[in-house]
Amino acid sequence: MKTLKVALLGCGNVGAQVARILLTDAEVLADRAGATLELTGIAVRNIGAKRDVEVPADLFTTDAEALIDESDIVIELLGGMEPASSLIRRALSRGASVITGNKALLAAQGGELNALAFENNAQLRYEAAVAGAIPILRPIMDSLSGDKITKVMGIVNGTTNFILDAMDSTGAQFDDVLKEAQDLGYAEADPTADVGGHDAASKAAILASLAFHTDFAFEDVHCEGITKITAADVAAAKDAGMVIKLLAIAERSEAGIGVRVHPTLLRRTHPLAAVHGAFNAVFVEAENAGELMFYGAGAGGAPTASAVMGDTVAVARRMASGGPLPAISAQQPVKVMDFCDITTSYWIGLEVNDEPGVLASIAQIFASNGVSIETLRQDSNPESNAGTAELLLVTHRSTEKALAATLAAVADLAAIKEVTSVLRVEGN
Amino acid sequence: MKTLKVALLGCGNVGAQVARILLTDAEVLADRAGATLELTGIAVRNIGAKRDVEVPADLFTTDAEALIDESDIVIELLGGMEPASSLIRRALSRGASVITGNKALLAAQGGELNALAFENNAQLRYEAAVAGAIPILRPIMDSLSGDKITKVMGIVNGTTNFILDAMDSTGAQFDDVLKEAQDLGYAEADPTADVGGHDAASKAAILASLAFHTDFAFEDVHCEGITKITAADVAAAKDAGMVIKLLAIAERSEAGIGVRVHPTLLRRTHPLAAVHGAFNAVFVEAENAGELMFYGAGAGGAPTASAVMGDTVAVARRMASGGPLPAISAQQPVKVMDFCDITTSYWIGLEVNDEPGVLASIAQIFASNGVSIETLRQDSNPESNAGTAELLLVTHRSTEKALAATLAAVADLAAIKEVTSVLRVEGN
Ligand SMILES: NC(=O)c1ccc[n+]([C@@H]2O[C@H](COP(=O)([O-])OP(=O)(O)OC[C@H]3O[C@@H](n4cnc5c(N)ncnc54)[C@H](OP(=O)(O)O)[C@@H]3O)[C@@H](O)[C@H]2O)c1
Ligand SMILES: NC(=O)c1ccc[n+]([C@@H]2O[C@H](COP(=O)([O-])OP(=O)(O)OC[C@H]3O[C@@H](n4cnc5c(N)ncnc54)[C@H](OP(=O)(O)O)[C@@H]3O)[C@@H](O)[C@H]2O)c1
Repeated sequence: MKTLKVALLGCGNVGAQVARILLTDAEVLADRAGATLELTGIAVRNIGAKRDVEVPADLFTTDAEALIDESDIVIELLGGMEPASSLIRRALSRGASVITGNKALLAAQGGELNALAFENNAQLRYEAAVAGAIPILRPIMDSLSGDKITKVMGIVNGTTNFILDAMDSTGAQFDDVLKEAQDLGYAEADPTADVGGHDAASKAAILASLAFHTDFAFEDVHCEGITKITAADVAAAKDAGMVIKLLAIAERSEAGIGVRVHPTLLRRTHPLAAVHGAFNAVFVEAENAGELMFYGAGAGGAPTASAVMGDTVAVARRMASGGPLPAISAQQPVKVMDFCDITTSYWIGLEVNDEPGVLASIAQIFASNGVSIETLRQDSNPESNAGTAELLLVTHRSTEKALAATLAAVADLAAIKEVTSVLRVEGN
Repeated sequence: MKTLKVALLGCGNVGAQVARILLTDAEVLADRAGATLELTGIAVRNIGAKRDVEVPADLFTTDAEALIDESDIVIELLGGMEPASSLIRRALSRGASVITGNKALLAAQGGELNALAFENNAQLRYEAAVAGAIPILRPIMDSLSGDKITKVMGIVNGTTNFILDAMDSTGAQFDDVLKEAQDLGYAEADPTADVGGHDAASKAAILASLAFHTDFAFEDVHCEGITKITAADVAAAKDAGMVIKLLAIAERSEAGIGVRVHPTLLRRTHPLAAVHGAFNAVFVEAENAGELMFYGAGAGGAPTASAVMGDTVAVARRMASGGPLPAISAQQPVKVMDFCDITTSYWIGLEVNDEPGVLASIAQIFASNGVSIETLRQDSNPESNAGTAELLLVTHRSTEKALAATLAAVADLAAIKEVTSVLRVEGN
């Protein structure tokens, strides 16, 4: 049986679990790959650091380049842009195949790295980069290769789902739940990348690129986080039989492909609404397959390592059998839509003076901007706000542009006291 | 670009949709496969029959064998054992690759057919055979190839899920819901294969074979259907925060691998509990990945055709790139467990005389058989049954053997009027 030399870059949360699996499950892996996977070294910053798993000390090195230059397969689990990018390029340029879970790097340089792999007849795989353990990239690329994907909607960030789910079940405010999530280890000390939606936006770019056979980067993704979601928003949604989730959405329409991350209202009967805690799930719509959903752990050392190892076995299998790479589907030239052209439904909360004619003026503004109203609910306010009423409108799908114009005109009405919330609605 | 000749056997629910996709999406398919897929003919029984899709009349033939002998890829969508089995063998023996959705055939002859494909350096794929459109076989084989699956639990039959879901939401009896399902086209005129659990058992054998790298046949699967589930069972489950689903379960333990299909109680918070109507879903537990779920349409012409086409593109891609087959993982010799050795939890309803000492005798019997009780609830019966009480017990996991002995001894107690229900509980 052929032996393939595997270099591991990084021995942190994920890297340590990959090392463990390579060392303890060697026999099973060899059987499945048709080749022996020999872990030849682990590049880290601090050789002496205490590790989560037992690894022979002589495997550690700080010379990642030398390690790469002796390897057939390189598993990059350092994170960050540099040195990860240079090291991956070094490996691919040598014709070594690379497995990585580095979503930030892929969202920035995925197109270039894929091209470099292709030029060098090397394989580049990154199932772990989106939704951790959940097999989602391969089903999109392979299982759905005979179908046409029309939409992908994913809960792809565990931290924000944990926070929104806790707000939903306890009624607490964002800040309090964030603090609890930090105490429990579900949110980082600096939570910006998660709660600002940037981590989800990286994953949205990767998902959209594969689903639509093209190349989206982080900048192509419209991104809004969850920091402005209030307990009142969550309660109002609950009241209407809905739940707020941070979704990464990529959708094809005649006008092009729009990719966005924002808090989104979903009916509680939608399959994504049942995704609780830090779990992830990706919902896919395809012309023939209809609606599919893939659910599981979106992060964590061992789950993410499972995805890394699935890629590693696949890469090794192909190396062992000596076959050429499969034909890569031509990159389709696509129109990346401007955010203002994207269509969705909107949930709009207004505080208005409770006087005759207000409703008519509001309805008139919506109509003249071509935004049609699906449902409208009016509640008189409790005594503290006597003389005012709360309006809750849900619109049919319309463009962001039309919505913005509508809201601007509505805000100008003398009878409007405040636009209390504007949220997008999907799966309606 | 290489041209591959594709023979389609069958033009029914699924075959017609496959023909449509091959004819209308030829360009996209060629791009993704790296080869042109030329539909060279469609074998049917009745050439003149009216079809669901527009197909050039000269493609139809009744001579399946001649068609196969001129083809690179054969898509079998006839159903049934013969002539499907002989035709698939004919194709594989010639070195043509085969895609099929024929679960009954695979559950009976999967091991042989896979071996025949391997001997002839041909590919055999059957994603459509389990859970229709849902990519499940490939994720199990490929994405999880670096992990060890410990358990698979699937809702893999849409008819029975539709019936159980309707019983749950309406409180109606099995017979009434079955009739409604037949009227709506969700159940066949002869529903035996579905409600008896046999269709699910075929799929359980296929899932277990792939998840555990071995070869299970239909006969290895313990199979119970849903015909004995009453409205009272469903209501009692609901009352306890649970729901009854027909599950195909394959589980690895130290004693071997057990494969079974039976009505199963699940907590309503379990991801499988949220699978409504005729939808399917497969829940997978793996050592590193943890819990995963795959959800979607389990049947229907277009969804099933999507899975068939995914396989077809994969097969064509490999043919176009000229590579050898990937190494097939060695079949692991495994111990198929006797059903009596399988462990699960049980939900047991008893009607007893409401007299002192009954509870103690029952508890004593459970204890002496080594079946430990997790929860127990006693309700006095309404006046119609004065003097009797209802007991509801849920046990910890124990073997079928121990449970059978326990029930036999309990039934012998003079104070027991009736064992009103025995159901298995999972995901507890
Ligand atoms: N954690 C998850 O659940 C998860 C999920 C999906 C994807 N990912 C992705 O997986 C990657 C790794 O994540 P992680 O959580 O395992 O990270 P981590 O715990 O921070 O580990 C990073 C590892 O890389 C090493 N390293 C960092 N910079 C280095 C340098 N310049 N030279 C040599 N070694 C260096 C560190 O060495 P020392 O130990 O010596 O400091 C450490 O072992 C990231 O791209 C992340 O986005 C993670
Ligand atoms: N339907 C689903 O949703 C679904 C889902 C998953 C898997 N599957 C599997 O897919 C397969 C096809 O199912 P289906 O629902 O499409 O079946 P179907 O509607 O009954 O169609 C069967 C087709 O095969 C042809 N045929 C049958 N026996 C033949 C023979 N001896 N010689 C030539 N042609 C013959 C029939 O020809 P005529 O039209 O001339 O009678 C018909 O076109 C089955 O194995 C089924 O289990 C189906």
